[in-house]
Amino acid sequence: MIIDCHGHYTTSPRQHETWRAEQIAADNEGRAAPPRPAITDDEIRATIVNGQLKVQQERGTDLTIFSPRAAGMGHHLGDASTSEAWATACNELIHRVCTLFPRNFIGVCMLPQSARVSPRNCVAELERCVQQYGFVGCNLNPDPSGGFWQDPPLGDKYWYPLYEKMVELDVPAMIHVSQACNPAFHTTGSHYLNGDTAAFMQCLTSDLFKNFPTLKFIIPHGGGAVPYHWGRFRGIAQDMKLPPLTEHLLRNVFFDTCVYHLPGQELLAKVIPIENILFASEMIGAVRGIDPETGHHYDDTKRYIEQLPISAADKAKVYEGNARQVYRRLSAQIAKQFG
Amino acid sequence: MIIDCHGHYTTSPRQHETWRAEQIAADNEGRAAPPRPAITDDEIRATIVNGQLKVQQERGTDLTIFSPRAAGMGHHLGDASTSEAWATACNELIHRVCTLFPRNFIGVCMLPQSARVSPRNCVAELERCVQQYGFVGCNLNPDPSGGFWQDPPLGDKYWYPLYEKMVELDVPAMIHVSQACNPAFHTTGSHYLNGDTAAFMQCLTSDLFKNFPTLKFIIPHGGGAVPYHWGRFRGIAQDMKLPPLTEHLLRNVFFDTCVYHLPGQELLAKVIPIENILFASEMIGAVRGIDPETGHHYDDTKRYIEQLPISAADKAKVYEGNARQVYRRLSAQIAKQFG
Repeated sequence: MIIDCHGHYTTSPRQHETWRAEQIAADNEGRAAPPRPAITDDEIRATIVNGQLKVQQERGTDLTIFSPRAAGMGHHLGDASTSEAWATACNELIHRVCTLFPRNFIGVCMLPQSARVSPRNCVAELERCVQQYGFVGCNLNPDPSGGFWQDPPLGDKYWYPLYEKMVELDVPAMIHVSQACNPAFHTTGSHYLNGDTAAFMQCLTSDLFKNFPTLKFIIPHGGGAVPYHWGRFRGIAQDMKLPPLTEHLLRNVFFDTCVYHLPGQELLAKVIPIENILFASEMIGAVRGIDPETGHHYDDTKRYIEQLPISAADKAKVYEGNARQVYRRLSAQIAKQFG
Repeated sequence: MIIDCHGHYTTSPRQHETWRAEQIAADNEGRAAPPRPAITDDEIRATIVNGQLKVQQERGTDLTIFSPRAAGMGHHLGDASTSEAWATACNELIHRVCTLFPRNFIGVCMLPQSARVSPRNCVAELERCVQQYGFVGCNLNPDPSGGFWQDPPLGDKYWYPLYEKMVELDVPAMIHVSQACNPAFHTTGSHYLNGDTAAFMQCLTSDLFKNFPTLKFIIPHGGGAVPYHWGRFRGIAQDMKLPPLTEHLLRNVFFDTCVYHLPGQELLAKVIPIENILFASEMIGAVRGIDPETGHHYDDTKRYIEQLPISAADKAKVYEGNARQVYRRLSAQIAKQFG
């Protein structure tokens, strides 16, 4: 089985995004948000059949771990109640996709975060999504301010209430920022990658995984700048008298394969232990074109993995085995959804 | 000749750094800064002979393009007058090093930047350093706020007065942030790399090099996350209907080789045209230890370059030729300093 651990519902029905715009406009004007729009199963089916399902079939992948659109999380907009209503709507939609296409999508939730609001308020939504919807993880935004970085680093006790619930439910988080509202950053070009690198370094300089030995993070987009600078990170940790990164972080931190050219994938597989790499494409995401150098979509990452000089057993780990290890509830949920 | 284009005076005499602390303390208390300390030539010689010169000789490099300590620039501290006095002191010290060791060091200046203060106020110091000191470039901080990213992106007209002077003087800038005062970032672990990636993307999304076709930027630390994600950046540019990156940016943007392991260097040389890569180590900098996997210093980047599968002619470009092209005043300054 080929499991893509990083997919967002970037093709969600138009009225869903329209309602979001209305919700934010209402919030800005001090009005109550309008009621949420009706979305039929057929409308959802159309967005998937012509979107992610089509791409799955074209590329020969089986199952996508699916979550709300990352740039759309917009935790910098509105306040805690705005985020709560939006997260509820987005997660419900993911649940409906997973119910309609149980053999193709398994859910991960977004969290109702807001800048400088304790992540304690995310616990109930996480629990609801895992318990009621069968979701297997969450996306955690390390910068709900959208590029101004106003929340404490991920090692801070500020985040512990959420981590306690994650550990209790045995679900990992993908560390994923949302849209940049700071003009210094381009959302998918620099903010995403910088969020990944910052998050890794926040973990490196903290006692987080001593305190939560079973907590697991996936750093997306191939780990930002981290594998390319693996020597730098090993050296910085060594200068700080920390244990080797394999011990200090790699029992808890994993990287996905959203790297959109072969040389990058080769580097990732060369420097990061194979057990720490999870197949992912973020299809219909940040980069949608066809690479003229290959004639294939930049984000068709399976083509790169196929070319890596690694064994079939290692490929199986990247495609399936590691995801089943990191998303501890995944195998049971697959059994349930596949019926 | 082997030219290291990225070295900072991280070993500067103690009284220089002590004065900086006093200057900031005085500023915080509304007092005038004390007079600058006396530093003898012998004191400077000692810091270099036992520091950068020793490392040059041990590693077999010839010439370092040398600038004030990057983390020490501290543009987020004090105000414009504080930055002006500090930049003057730091640049003067670099000039003294270059005068004492004319065959080993050629200067690059820091700029008296402050967050949200027009870089127009950096023009005089740049001109002074180039004209009076024979410096061949400057370090430009894209985030003088120290991790809160409050200034406009590098493509904004805000920066044009500085670019106009750079073009007039025919000197490039290394885009280099300083210390992070935002707890979300580790200065050398994430802020530096994120600054590199953000700067590259700011260039990508702007008309900067259409307006300044001879302006040149060096993105240090191997270009942050950029070469590892070269497919992503090519794809994003393509989705934006921009020309190929080789045309759009690579006549103006160059990467250094401050990447502290062989796989990273291999990737850099594989994806970035050889003409755009400048040898650098940032020795006695961010990573000071010895890599147990190689038995050599992480930042002894010459050892990695030696192992690359590139021709001797290409190595000569990386070591010397490209630096002479990008730092347009370098060859004349070498002739002058070498006597």
